[in-house]
Amino acid sequence: MNLAKVEEIKNPLTHLDEHGRPRMVNVGDKSASPRTAEAEGWVSLDESLCNLLSEGASSKKGDVLRIAETAGIMGAKRTWEIIPLCHPIRLDSVEVQCDFQPEERRIYIRSRIRSKDVTGVEMEALAAVSTAALTVYDMCKAVSKNMIIEGVRLLRKTGGKSGEYLATPASGGQP
Amino acid sequence: MNLAKVEEIKNPLTHLDEHGRPRMVNVGDKSASPRTAEAEGWVSLDESLCNLLSEGASSKKGDVLRIAETAGIMGAKRTWEIIPLCHPIRLDSVEVQCDFQPEERRIYIRSRIRSKDVTGVEMEALAAVSTAALTVYDMCKAVSKNMIIEGVRLLRKTGGKSGEYLATPASGGQP
Amino acid sequence: MNLAKVEEIKNPLTHLDEHGRPRMVNVGDKSASPRTAEAEGWVSLDESLCNLLSEGASSKKGDVLRIAETAGIMGAKRTWEIIPLCHPIRLDSVEVQCDFQPEERRIYIRSRIRSKDVTGVEMEALAAVSTAALTVYDMCKAVSKNMIIEGVRLLRKTGGKSGEYLATPASGGQP
Amino acid sequence: MNLAKVEEIKNPLTHLDEHGRPRMVNVGDKSASPRTAEAEGWVSLDESLCNLLSEGASSKKGDVLRIAETAGIMGAKRTWEIIPLCHPIRLDSVEVQCDFQPEERRIYIRSRIRSKDVTGVEMEALAAVSTAALTVYDMCKAVSKNMIIEGVRLLRKTGGKSGEYLATPASGGQP
Amino acid sequence: MNLAKVEEIKNPLTHLDEHGRPRMVNVGDKSASPRTAEAEGWVSLDESLCNLLSEGASSKKGDVLRIAETAGIMGAKRTWEIIPLCHPIRLDSVEVQCDFQPEERRIYIRSRIRSKDVTGVEMEALAAVSTAALTVYDMCKAVSKNMIIEGVRLLRKTGGKSGEYLATPASGGQP
Amino acid sequence: MNLAKVEEIKNPLTHLDEHGRPRMVNVGDKSASPRTAEAEGWVSLDESLCNLLSEGASSKKGDVLRIAETAGIMGAKRTWEIIPLCHPIRLDSVEVQCDFQPEERRIYIRSRIRSKDVTGVEMEALAAVSTAALTVYDMCKAVSKNMIIEGVRLLRKTGGKSGEYLATPASGGQP
Repeated sequence: MNLAKVEEIKNPLTHLDEHGRPRMVNVGDKSASPRTAEAEGWVSLDESLCNLLSEGASSKKGDVLRIAETAGIMGAKRTWEIIPLCHPIRLDSVEVQCDFQPEERRIYIRSRIRSKDVTGVEMEALAAVSTAALTVYDMCKAVSKNMIIEGVRLLRKTGGKSGEYLATPASGGQP
Repeated sequence: MNLAKVEEIKNPLTHLDEHGRPRMVNVGDKSASPRTAEAEGWVSLDESLCNLLSEGASSKKGDVLRIAETAGIMGAKRTWEIIPLCHPIRLDSVEVQCDFQPEERRIYIRSRIRSKDVTGVEMEALAAVSTAALTVYDMCKAVSKNMIIEGVRLLRKTGGKSGEYLATPASGGQP
Repeated sequence: MNLAKVEEIKNPLTHLDEHGRPRMVNVGDKSASPRTAEAEGWVSLDESLCNLLSEGASSKKGDVLRIAETAGIMGAKRTWEIIPLCHPIRLDSVEVQCDFQPEERRIYIRSRIRSKDVTGVEMEALAAVSTAALTVYDMCKAVSKNMIIEGVRLLRKTGGKSGEYLATPASGGQP
Repeated sequence: MNLAKVEEIKNPLTHLDEHGRPRMVNVGDKSASPRTAEAEGWVSLDESLCNLLSEGASSKKGDVLRIAETAGIMGAKRTWEIIPLCHPIRLDSVEVQCDFQPEERRIYIRSRIRSKDVTGVEMEALAAVSTAALTVYDMCKAVSKNMIIEGVRLLRKTGGKSGEYLATPASGGQP
Repeated sequence: MNLAKVEEIKNPLTHLDEHGRPRMVNVGDKSASPRTAEAEGWVSLDESLCNLLSEGASSKKGDVLRIAETAGIMGAKRTWEIIPLCHPIRLDSVEVQCDFQPEERRIYIRSRIRSKDVTGVEMEALAAVSTAALTVYDMCKAVSKNMIIEGVRLLRKTGGKSGEYLATPASGGQP
Repeated sequence: MNLAKVEEIKNPLTHLDEHGRPRMVNVGDKSASPRTAEAEGWVSLDESLCNLLSEGASSKKGDVLRIAETAGIMGAKRTWEIIPLCHPIRLDSVEVQCDFQPEERRIYIRSRIRSKDVTGVEMEALAAVSTAALTVYDMCKAVSKNMIIEGVRLLRKTGGKSGEYLATPASGGQP
């Protein structure tokens, strides 16, 4: 067990030093390797909004979703600016998918990030979902403010020393 | 009923024009007035993380919360950069409050924004909560990735032509 | 004739002081008033790209245009960050319109900005067009790099002490 | 012919998936290699502005050009923030050159970017030219608004799987 | 004495609430009024750098100073993004002046900001000086790293309820 | 002696070309290697502020320091955006430490950056100290504006072709 590991056990909140000071943890000893992260979340809609998206304004629904996806991709790239202790990271790909699920009364959002770097991309995946969700809220709030952003979590990650992570249950996207 | 109102009824997704093009809606006819918005949300924690924050690392818990609050305030100020169709807005005050609620197994986040401008600050309140929640996730994820960001919604807004909005039920913060 | 006017005649490059130093000129003596600015520009396409947008990929053409419009709106909001001596400005509305004009072999872009502030929004209108044009280029460059961004200019402005400006001839958009 | 190549032929607008969703395309299979890109463009000036830069204010002309070059360099670095689907990229060098060409009645702008990364720097070269051109416009617009940004295009790129690209005719900079 | 004043006496660190939480203090009760702030600071140079700027490279010295001034102006505009609890503010003018003072062996920097808003512009004036000083450092560090940024302070402010502030002694700029 | 070296001797202000144009110097020939940089600086306090931090408000003092450290870390990451000719750089770790030293009547700030890249991280270390210092100023200025940011300099750097640099005397932090 190496020293870094020992320190991590004694101090599991690694973003704080022994005096509680914030720090961007040292990733200089890690070597770049392929990493992926997937996250999900959704925006719950009330009946009025759900009806509007289902019927009258359905021709525009796609545009709302496309703009939210664009915002999610852009948000993923800026994660390190917004989250204080995140590392700036090279991103190989960012995908964000927003789907209107009328039976679930929600817009479901899923992101997938790929990178070849020394630290993981979990935060980028979560930031993509959060930014897309906020954008959905912004674009629909003139109709109804009874929306709730829910279930924003990491679904899966691969790569890095901590290996694979799989959320349980698998996905809120598959009811 | 004025023309803008008529258009809004025919086209309730006001961020899109009649061809589905995105637009930053015109607020030039509104006059500046005092506005507030409050939002809430929380990060659900698993048992291991909850125990850690309750016991061993409790001296550092406050530091996690303070950094998340700082990030939330900074995130609110950058809402217009991140959300494509938001207006840049003058903010009079931003408050973000993060509390560890061990019985609820969560970190509960609440924001309050005040402004005197021509458009509302709902998005700033929601962005503050989302950014603080992501920061909590980032700082705790070395311990456990089983966190979920939940219940991010507008609690209350005042001011503007649409008047007061109050979420029902009142608040996830008062179980 | 007031002193500021006299100085402007002697030193028409008002963004530089008498020693050639850059400065953000003082707008503190002006009072806020309604202002608008419209700009245009286009991306010339070669035949291969024109054919592709006309036929095979036509179902996606709209998506390219919508994302470019979104980028143009976001770019307008960040003008003051990117252009060194621009003032941060309140924007009341931003509209960006991208149209594929197969007979002109181009994607034509037009922006319109409204504001009620102490300085004009010409730069925001031009930045919106430029950013949308760059985004079109980025999204189409895998097909062909023979694109040229052309004709980016101010079409019209209203408001402010210099009054109305109208470009001659009226618009590249109406061939 | 590999699968990615096949997909690209069927879907040449690679920034959109098969449903028209935006995506930051995956560059994870590419390996870092030296890349360069050069772009050009110019700002057409009317006679009054041309005379002013030639004569009276000539001592300041250099300062206008230097500030535009500085803005162009800074703009290149922020390309990934402004253009929705661009990858964040490591830049090895950025050069932007602005020249007043009185016989052409224009300020001619040329950029050159070098990088060692997995994707090209064409967009950075074009963004550098666009940002410098907008800055020229901003600094001269108090004299005359009859400026047009023209001819913004890629001149040359090297490196990457698509190899060298050379614009025809060679350059607007050599009349 | 109003309540806000009483609270300020009991809690003079107004950026923290009674629990030590950060907050962007409420300026909603203040009315916009003209405000100015001036700041100064300098970069101490060693002999080698001083000689270089005095003699051989003197033709370029002006360019170093102009770029630092440009960076200082841009830095002032982004103060609210960089300093966590600063309010976004409308700036009426920003001036930054960098002078090489060989007898003092330094580059002396002075900024002046004007605004008509509800809160002061001291931080913008200080951020302008700091950013210009860092830029000088960056541009000269290939020659010598023995530079020190010194004396960064507020020289004068006017406007607002706390009235005028004048530093004592008057200015490091007048030896 | 290679050509780059010869050019550097003739033109020691490497951020400017032979015509005085700004440029982001080419680092494409360098190979990535481990680099560190440490910087220091302090905020001098007057007696009133020093007493306040020592006594009455001491419970909040830590919060001021933690927020300044957070801002310093975030500022380091954005160095390349703020300083015109800095390269975007991968940062492996950022540490910022703010200490109240009542006997010195100051808040002392020290930063340490680690990276594995082709260019040094001196500017990041200095930007971290400057941003933390400005944040201290902002949070304390309601008590007293008689603060001065002093002694901001590079303490030590390692790595890169210019090798180690050690400031003399060693550190203002060890009186």
